[in-house]
Amino acid sequence: MASESGKLWGGRFVGAVDPIMEKFNSSIAYDRHLWEVDVQGSKAYSRGLEKAGLLTKAEMDQILHGLDKVAEEWAQGTFKLSPNDEDIHTANERRLKELIGETAGKLHTGRSRNDQVVTDLRLWMRQNCSKLSSLLWELIRTMVDRAEAERDVLFPGYTHLQRAQPIRWSHWILSGAIAGNPLGVDRELLQAELNFGAITLNSMDATSERDFVAEFLFWASLCMTHLSRMAEDLILYGTKEFSFVQLSDAYSTGSSLMPQKKNPDSLELIRSKAGRVFGRCAGLLMTLKGLPSTYNKDLQEDKEAVFEVSDTMSAVLQVATGVISTLQIHRENMARALSPDMLATDLAYYLVRKGMPFRQAHEASGKAVFMAETKGVALNQLSLKELQTISPLFSADVSHVWDYGHSVEQYAALGGTARASVDWQIGQVRALLRAQQA
Amino acid sequence: MASESGKLWGGRFVGAVDPIMEKFNSSIAYDRHLWEVDVQGSKAYSRGLEKAGLLTKAEMDQILHGLDKVAEEWAQGTFKLSPNDEDIHTANERRLKELIGETAGKLHTGRSRNDQVVTDLRLWMRQNCSKLSSLLWELIRTMVDRAEAERDVLFPGYTHLQRAQPIRWSHWILSGAIAGNPLGVDRELLQAELNFGAITLNSMDATSERDFVAEFLFWASLCMTHLSRMAEDLILYGTKEFSFVQLSDAYSTGSSLMPQKKNPDSLELIRSKAGRVFGRCAGLLMTLKGLPSTYNKDLQEDKEAVFEVSDTMSAVLQVATGVISTLQIHRENMARALSPDMLATDLAYYLVRKGMPFRQAHEASGKAVFMAETKGVALNQLSLKELQTISPLFSADVSHVWDYGHSVEQYAALGGTARASVDWQIGQVRALLRAQQA
Amino acid sequence: MASESGKLWGGRFVGAVDPIMEKFNSSIAYDRHLWEVDVQGSKAYSRGLEKAGLLTKAEMDQILHGLDKVAEEWAQGTFKLSPNDEDIHTANERRLKELIGETAGKLHTGRSRNDQVVTDLRLWMRQNCSKLSSLLWELIRTMVDRAEAERDVLFPGYTHLQRAQPIRWSHWILSGAIAGNPLGVDRELLQAELNFGAITLNSMDATSERDFVAEFLFWASLCMTHLSRMAEDLILYGTKEFSFVQLSDAYSTGSSLMPQKKNPDSLELIRSKAGRVFGRCAGLLMTLKGLPSTYNKDLQEDKEAVFEVSDTMSAVLQVATGVISTLQIHRENMARALSPDMLATDLAYYLVRKGMPFRQAHEASGKAVFMAETKGVALNQLSLKELQTISPLFSADVSHVWDYGHSVEQYAALGGTARASVDWQIGQVRALLRAQQA
Amino acid sequence: MASESGKLWGGRFVGAVDPIMEKFNSSIAYDRHLWEVDVQGSKAYSRGLEKAGLLTKAEMDQILHGLDKVAEEWAQGTFKLSPNDEDIHTANERRLKELIGETAGKLHTGRSRNDQVVTDLRLWMRQNCSKLSSLLWELIRTMVDRAEAERDVLFPGYTHLQRAQPIRWSHWILSGAIAGNPLGVDRELLQAELNFGAITLNSMDATSERDFVAEFLFWASLCMTHLSRMAEDLILYGTKEFSFVQLSDAYSTGSSLMPQKKNPDSLELIRSKAGRVFGRCAGLLMTLKGLPSTYNKDLQEDKEAVFEVSDTMSAVLQVATGVISTLQIHRENMARALSPDMLATDLAYYLVRKGMPFRQAHEASGKAVFMAETKGVALNQLSLKELQTISPLFSADVSHVWDYGHSVEQYAALGGTARASVDWQIGQVRALLRAQQA
Repeated sequence: MASESGKLWGGRFVGAVDPIMEKFNSSIAYDRHLWEVDVQGSKAYSRGLEKAGLLTKAEMDQILHGLDKVAEEWAQGTFKLSPNDEDIHTANERRLKELIGETAGKLHTGRSRNDQVVTDLRLWMRQNCSKLSSLLWELIRTMVDRAEAERDVLFPGYTHLQRAQPIRWSHWILSGAIAGNPLGVDRELLQAELNFGAITLNSMDATSERDFVAEFLFWASLCMTHLSRMAEDLILYGTKEFSFVQLSDAYSTGSSLMPQKKNPDSLELIRSKAGRVFGRCAGLLMTLKGLPSTYNKDLQEDKEAVFEVSDTMSAVLQVATGVISTLQIHRENMARALSPDMLATDLAYYLVRKGMPFRQAHEASGKAVFMAETKGVALNQLSLKELQTISPLFSADVSHVWDYGHSVEQYAALGGTARASVDWQIGQVRALLRAQQA
Repeated sequence: MASESGKLWGGRFVGAVDPIMEKFNSSIAYDRHLWEVDVQGSKAYSRGLEKAGLLTKAEMDQILHGLDKVAEEWAQGTFKLSPNDEDIHTANERRLKELIGETAGKLHTGRSRNDQVVTDLRLWMRQNCSKLSSLLWELIRTMVDRAEAERDVLFPGYTHLQRAQPIRWSHWILSGAIAGNPLGVDRELLQAELNFGAITLNSMDATSERDFVAEFLFWASLCMTHLSRMAEDLILYGTKEFSFVQLSDAYSTGSSLMPQKKNPDSLELIRSKAGRVFGRCAGLLMTLKGLPSTYNKDLQEDKEAVFEVSDTMSAVLQVATGVISTLQIHRENMARALSPDMLATDLAYYLVRKGMPFRQAHEASGKAVFMAETKGVALNQLSLKELQTISPLFSADVSHVWDYGHSVEQYAALGGTARASVDWQIGQVRALLRAQQA
Repeated sequence: MASESGKLWGGRFVGAVDPIMEKFNSSIAYDRHLWEVDVQGSKAYSRGLEKAGLLTKAEMDQILHGLDKVAEEWAQGTFKLSPNDEDIHTANERRLKELIGETAGKLHTGRSRNDQVVTDLRLWMRQNCSKLSSLLWELIRTMVDRAEAERDVLFPGYTHLQRAQPIRWSHWILSGAIAGNPLGVDRELLQAELNFGAITLNSMDATSERDFVAEFLFWASLCMTHLSRMAEDLILYGTKEFSFVQLSDAYSTGSSLMPQKKNPDSLELIRSKAGRVFGRCAGLLMTLKGLPSTYNKDLQEDKEAVFEVSDTMSAVLQVATGVISTLQIHRENMARALSPDMLATDLAYYLVRKGMPFRQAHEASGKAVFMAETKGVALNQLSLKELQTISPLFSADVSHVWDYGHSVEQYAALGGTARASVDWQIGQVRALLRAQQA
Repeated sequence: MASESGKLWGGRFVGAVDPIMEKFNSSIAYDRHLWEVDVQGSKAYSRGLEKAGLLTKAEMDQILHGLDKVAEEWAQGTFKLSPNDEDIHTANERRLKELIGETAGKLHTGRSRNDQVVTDLRLWMRQNCSKLSSLLWELIRTMVDRAEAERDVLFPGYTHLQRAQPIRWSHWILSGAIAGNPLGVDRELLQAELNFGAITLNSMDATSERDFVAEFLFWASLCMTHLSRMAEDLILYGTKEFSFVQLSDAYSTGSSLMPQKKNPDSLELIRSKAGRVFGRCAGLLMTLKGLPSTYNKDLQEDKEAVFEVSDTMSAVLQVATGVISTLQIHRENMARALSPDMLATDLAYYLVRKGMPFRQAHEASGKAVFMAETKGVALNQLSLKELQTISPLFSADVSHVWDYGHSVEQYAALGGTARASVDWQIGQVRALLRAQQA
């Protein structure tokens, strides 16, 4: 019938089965990743069937044994796919039947393919999120180690990429380490969903909602956004103009044309992956939009997204760890980049401490900056007399302002850039690391 | 200087201040939403300054009193913006100074605009998430009420939009009610971030990360995805072809051209908003991508996104509640849509209970479907004899299979469509509602 | 140094080259698709070098011959990648050197890798867009063939999924065929960019802008949006409730659980791919956002996006063609779905022709609809007397309104649903097809 | 009925019309932008009705006159919206009826609201794209003017943000100017669609496809991506570390906390808008995905997207023009940033010209770079003897390599950075500008 219609309407010939449709429909090319959890899930299900009296003890044992064989074949690379295996679930069931015969047909009593697919994916994600989490903690640990060892290095803090105030290098590192832990939060979320301690409340919703996938993809997108920003900073800090850091050779590459160049490819790739990962998140949400309830084949899009994003995150986290652990810093350049005008805020605070309202003090300090610029000298080279033309509150002790070390020590509030405050942050992150390991 | 350059390079004339730039830069048009939390935040900050010895008790009182006046003016609609008020923060500070004089200048000691902006937004979101949460619970409550009252109505369950098995109408309603509660989870997340019980760990990170905004936008996107799917179902169920439900007039509109039509505009708008809300989420992540650390003006994009999404969610949740509470169902049409072939799975289970492996039983049932189709009769009109040509396991008690009420009662596992199971789901959601109110 | 740093900061050990970084950096896994255009581009470039006097005739011949050998090895599947081949360009150059010796080193005089990458991709896209275009025209041809053969079938036109007015089935088909041709427009765009007749105007821009990639991805997204809408319509028309069309077995699959079901997997997959394809477009734009000018490694993301989207489009277009060419329509169900209330607009026009302003006529027709509903009869069963209580303009000739065939014939404006108008549309699309082939 | 249901199911009270639904449904808040084109479209339509014999000449004149009055009221700000005006079309029609009576009811004969909406939007976009286009050409003109005036300024070209080779400052400017003209291409597209010379081929497709909106939003997204990259470059060039350019005061703002800072807010806002604009494009495509054919209320989302993006583009283009026209460049810093190692490629080409294959020459030049680094001298300070230990091809004329001006002049191919080549680019862009004005 089909082929006649095919002839009638002038389309390309179509037999009983269109091979392009078969390939289009098939998910085995990527869902073979699921072989292990598929066997694991089927074993659990057959135990459930036995409890419910739908399998005898002997049948269950036969199935369990058969499934172990299937798993063994996958593990040893001897499992042979047949052309009709459209997905991992049919492949495993087909092989089980070859191994143990008709009893295999009982395994799927009361279990739809859609249940199986979604359960397998949840199991796989539970395993995999755990691996990603370890990699993320490894990155955070590396950052804290560095932060601790290098906490006496000062360099400019920037806002709007304009030099703002002196800060500790460790303060910058920790800002990344802290931004890195959304996974900490998110894992609880995923765990809550994946530990199967809780039962899905509604069978219609269970096969069709993909919140756990969407949330994973969004976590990854947000995490990559943070890493893209860290990468951007390090790319800038590594330019000739900044010269604060130098990537190790292991994470940079030369130019095919310009012999003198070393390019920060590792960081550029990290930055770029934010787009790719978010694209997968966007794609899944668009696929879900307006879909009728319960299962539709559209949902098959979830798996490739999860696998690709998981692989990307795994590579990104390891490369980022490598970059951070081997990065060299140029202390002298960092120190040289500090300049007295970055202490203009401190100069204002000096006046505040002498009783001037902050807005007035800010204005007075601005005048000093302008005066220095006009005279072509550094801010700390204005004489006391000159300063006193701006405000009579200036006195000899203003000279204490011009000390970068003293400046950072003022920011001793929790979260600040004073030594004690940075130590406290290190302590907080170490506590998280310990909690994580327990 | 600027104007000379302007002349030199042939661009449009540019004076000291480009009015288009001023407007481009200004956020007052939308951040006036923040007036209340800005005053609230400034009051808290002035108390902190007093504790730190940077304000005297008298100065603090003067400031607190002045801020109350500012708030009063906003509340009464008498606050007058001046052309130089580029954002709500400068506006309030300018007015405070007019009211109490120079002391106002002390309020911002040690507090950057960027801190203030991000704190205000967090405060506003805390308030607002709470309102949205109430609206969401109201929707869920309405759904549970209906689910409880109509739990004896059966209609077809669909997968792939193909009729699958009979289910309870309440089972469908609850699948939506349950999908609706990601906010429950998410609010804990946001609360944890917003209750300010925890201190932000790192001052650089604090002004520049917008995870709380991104997570809110993503929660809204995911929530809208669910609602778009519920809307799609109801649009379909309301077509002439399905005729399961009818929207009340309050939520549908007539056609300008075709007098006989009533269009489900409310549901179509709900469905469409998934795109708008997700677009805001996508836009923010793209803005964040690759941004240097700490504050950059790019972050100003966060507020309009939050305000617009919050307004949209508020309208969507209320309209959805109205739609669900006034929807009429056509019980007879729902009943009429049930057909014996939807019991083919039950027929397979009948054989399973007689000892046949499921895969064989599935095949046998498929043969029965095919036989009925070939003979042009309904599945339940096959004679026992005819069934026995397929399997000798069929006997007279097969007639019990052809009862829709009996069919749904089989699915008594938690989450299923049996009366007890649906009651259990109602109980679960009611428990959530109670927990929410406490 | 690197390894010492590695030890120092507690990261995992890092030698001279981090193998994960190497893999992260390498693009050979997917850019091998480019082998043919890479050879083609290098051959052209070596001819250019000879013309410029940078290669002798003999050297050029040696290189051309060597490149042919390289191509031969790829074509026969005998090309062996070495572990150091990080991309297709280094692989081909390495092999060329093995085959012809040092002369190979002259091939890349004055040509950066970045130039080569972008030129290869443009060449590949030129070839590939041409293939996709053929597939799209094949789909359009199939649709026009059907539209022509089935132009006497009437069925309901819908807006808001509410039955609106009778239309020709061919009118629906052509609405898809016409929406399908953005590629027609877009190919001109791409061609203009890809024919290399025009020289890129600026060397900095040439290596870093990826407009041709972004535009291709957007074309694909928009095309998929149209196909997702066509798929949605056909899924609906194939439900039990609509029963207008039936997918051939070649494009539907059975249920693992429910023997009676045939699911429209092909259409659901087409619908779902809109998300995936758009996700790639979104990802690329996010990657491009805020990138410093000229080449950055981030741009490497372009190729996988193009390859994946191209493969997806190729499969989608072929499956869609198969679906359309083998789809069965149920004429009787289509006819049965027409009902007199769909002629309410015609009833209004009847009054307009008798001189009543349209807004009044619309109201009068609405009253007739309401009267029929109240009396529980079809709109065409109202007696002339009853109609005349609404307006004295009704007379015996109103009976002509109740003819579906007559109704559609009124819409004879270009683009309408009258036979002549549909024929004109068929003619227009056929003219496009002919123009395409020429 | 509705209200009873409302009571029954416990939702909030719902009367005949839910005011929130009314507001949710209404588009008047934003579609009033369309008043002018709505009148324009209605005037054209009434002329069509007269031609078709559906209006008398007198009726047409009455309508045309009435519509002019409506337009006058809008223009003078005296048009009064009534609470029942749900969109601009009903508002104008209602007012027309008040002004001229029942004849107004004839205006919409045979014209659906959906036609009217889409036609109005197309008309509005035609006008507005023309305005945006002028602003874009103004930006390009400003860039070319600068490029011409400053073509003797050299500074480092970067790839991967690493200093690569000396280039002309004008070469950078022109890379942006050239990237800026996708609108040139796109306008043809839009014009082709909007000039209404061509008739929409299919009435179903005409009311429901929004390709012209999607393409406009994508053009804007791509244009913003380019501008975000230009903004990123200028932000970097304006840092203390680069110090190549300085923003005029008109386009930068001070810090509330740090008196010494001038932040590039204008450029940061331009960069950020790429996210917002793309978000609108993403949102619209998501809204369109999977929508049933013909009109659905979901399509109402198109207008706000278009209006917002149009406003954003208008502001961005004007601010970008202002920034470019008033930017100061620091020639000495640009010159100082050039260093002999940036001539390493030239050194390789020197050897190529002496007959060495490029790959060997690249290696030899790399050895020279390494030797200079090891000896702690600049590359041009290696003696001829030292160079000759690397290759005997080096001779006294190698000294000509160390001249930046000479270096850039080598790149005289079209699109290169030689003076003649830059002049050619200026000429090309000027030709485009002239073509545009004609």
